Amino acid sequence: MAFTGRELRSTVSDGKLALSLEEVRMDDPGDDEIIVRIEAAPINPSDLGLLLGPADLATLARRDGDRPDLTFDIPHARLAAVAGRLDQSMPVGNEGAGTVVAAGRNASSLAGKRVGMIGGAMYADYRRIRASDVIPLPEGATAADGASMFVNPLTALGFVETARREGHPAIVHTAAASNLGQMLQKVCLSDGIPLVNIVRSREQAAILRGIGATFVVNSKDDDFAAQLAEAIEQTGATIAFDAIGGGTLGSDIVRAMERASVRRMSEYNRYGSTVFKQLYIYGALDPSPTTLDRLAFGFQWGVSGWLLFPFLQKAGQDVAQRMRRRVVDELNTTFASTYTRVIGLAEALEPDILRAYERKATGEKFLIDPTRG
Amino acid sequence: MAFTGRELRSTVSDGKLALSLEEVRMDDPGDDEIIVRIEAAPINPSDLGLLLGPADLATLARRDGDRPDLTFDIPHARLAAVAGRLDQSMPVGNEGAGTVVAAGRNASSLAGKRVGMIGGAMYADYRRIRASDVIPLPEGATAADGASMFVNPLTALGFVETARREGHPAIVHTAAASNLGQMLQKVCLSDGIPLVNIVRSREQAAILRGIGATFVVNSKDDDFAAQLAEAIEQTGATIAFDAIGGGTLGSDIVRAMERASVRRMSEYNRYGSTVFKQLYIYGALDPSPTTLDRLAFGFQWGVSGWLLFPFLQKAGQDVAQRMRRRVVDELNTTFASTYTRVIGLAEALEPDILRAYERKATGEKFLIDPTRG
Repeated sequence: MAFTGRELRSTVSDGKLALSLEEVRMDDPGDDEIIVRIEAAPINPSDLGLLLGPADLATLARRDGDRPDLTFDIPHARLAAVAGRLDQSMPVGNEGAGTVVAAGRNASSLAGKRVGMIGGAMYADYRRIRASDVIPLPEGATAADGASMFVNPLTALGFVETARREGHPAIVHTAAASNLGQMLQKVCLSDGIPLVNIVRSREQAAILRGIGATFVVNSKDDDFAAQLAEAIEQTGATIAFDAIGGGTLGSDIVRAMERASVRRMSEYNRYGSTVFKQLYIYGALDPSPTTLDRLAFGFQWGVSGWLLFPFLQKAGQDVAQRMRRRVVDELNTTFASTYTRVIGLAEALEPDILRAYERKATGEKFLIDPTRG
Repeated sequence: MAFTGRELRSTVSDGKLALSLEEVRMDDPGDDEIIVRIEAAPINPSDLGLLLGPADLATLARRDGDRPDLTFDIPHARLAAVAGRLDQSMPVGNEGAGTVVAAGRNASSLAGKRVGMIGGAMYADYRRIRASDVIPLPEGATAADGASMFVNPLTALGFVETARREGHPAIVHTAAASNLGQMLQKVCLSDGIPLVNIVRSREQAAILRGIGATFVVNSKDDDFAAQLAEAIEQTGATIAFDAIGGGTLGSDIVRAMERASVRRMSEYNRYGSTVFKQLYIYGALDPSPTTLDRLAFGFQWGVSGWLLFPFLQKAGQDVAQRMRRRVVDELNTTFASTYTRVIGLAEALEPDILRAYERKATGEKFLIDPTRG
């Protein structure tokens, strides 16, 4: 009972990046394995790094053949960054959901069930995976409901867990109207943690106010700096999670935190406040360098990368287990995702569609359903 | 038996910073206190922040009067940063050494002894201080020998302690030919920790090689990037202490660490290496913003401020005690400081001398001896 299906692959070689759909034959599952027919897999910003790497989108070209097949030039200066993946045909897609179509001896209880899963190679017709790496969806949940139950929900819960562990009373979040941002706002509301949302438009601000956000600051407003200072002063936020990364926004946030902390001090300290301020950069919506006006931070500050998997490892199994359980329990409320467009697997390699999801515009979210072709 | 003497004061008011010598009368010491006649106090970069703050040196002006008295304009944009010290006459000078000229009932064993001390207000003729806050100098040590026994020695030991606690096998240090840098190199040699020294001239490189440094990289060399990469690869350094702060040097260091780590990986990981790389900024020789090319760092990185006193607090009393003991034991070897110029207290307010010590040139080091006038 072997399955044959397509897998989306990304390959860097000879200074080019190629995207293709490869035919893959999947042998019977092992005793502890299952085979899942994938019915929904989201395109997250975190997928695009592997999918498109440092390719120059303007150089997109189709190659002849039966199957969709695209190539891009890679700017010379960026080749060193992908030396480690040279000539390897890499499957793409962090997470997804679908129906179990074959189950090994020790996994027979999953046969026919709908499951959510994480582990890569999800932009494909089928995925062979260890039974312990999937979560059965609650009764009535669709594959679309379960497609994004890992990356965004666990990241939102991970932010809150990180803030708690490090002793911060309130949080700042940028690009805050994203699916992830909305989940974070819902978690913070139910956990009683003040959250300062930074957005880039009125429409985004309205989305967040619509789900109960109190602190929403629009970086396009003329008085953004004053609004931000006010919100940070009111909440006492001393930790920020930043999806943008480039430019000065992260620095502006830390400076506002420091000013609010200094204002609360009774005595002058030339080294600034004694309050530790932490900026975590978890995304790269702006790939330009990060500029830190650190002399306005005092000396008690840190800027770091934040990534889900190292966080989960550090937090330990119990915490990860508790977080997963909460995601299942609140799948259609706190952790509901919305998609603006559902595409087939082959469509993911249509130039116009590719350019649309590559833009990573807040409010737009693509879902791949390989059963659509 | 009251003592009367001068104290150097720095005051911000009406948009100006004023430096003056104030006459201060010191009452008898309390039971647990002593009065020290100060005979040596170094001018460290960390003193200049309080002394000169954000003053514009080009606007230096003398005020009329019997005593030296200088004023400077403060650029309007920088006034907010010193709002906390407005209209306060602040004594200056972190550390120093001298002779105990009066001792309280419980401190009589210190009478007549030469001691080193930290705690501010050391640019003065006399300092009243708790007996527990001073360290008696070893037999034969001069006040100059003991004047810098806190800030630089404890910082050098603090760097090594920090690297050990956080599990880093080797260290990178910038502005490495400073008094502090030489101490750090000696500590690393005796503790067997590889150290990559970054300097800005051949003369500085020679100073470090003269005390046994193996890895010295000159940022003025054309092939600096290649030299740095090579030294980081050879040592496996994953932590850096940066006195410069501004510009891209810190970023260049972290990028080189990441490249060396990636080269050791057997499998491609789109998130970069799993090795944590830490950059601590402890100085501001370049006050311009810090620019981080973070996309070349992977996700396992941190950039933070590093400051001696919070470090000592976090490390705890036992560690601080152990570090202090080592400083006394190795005062004239590992922790020997050299001064290029000794000035009186009044001379510290001579415009030409002030401009000279404000330059913070590596290799130049000023010592104030108030007994010279």
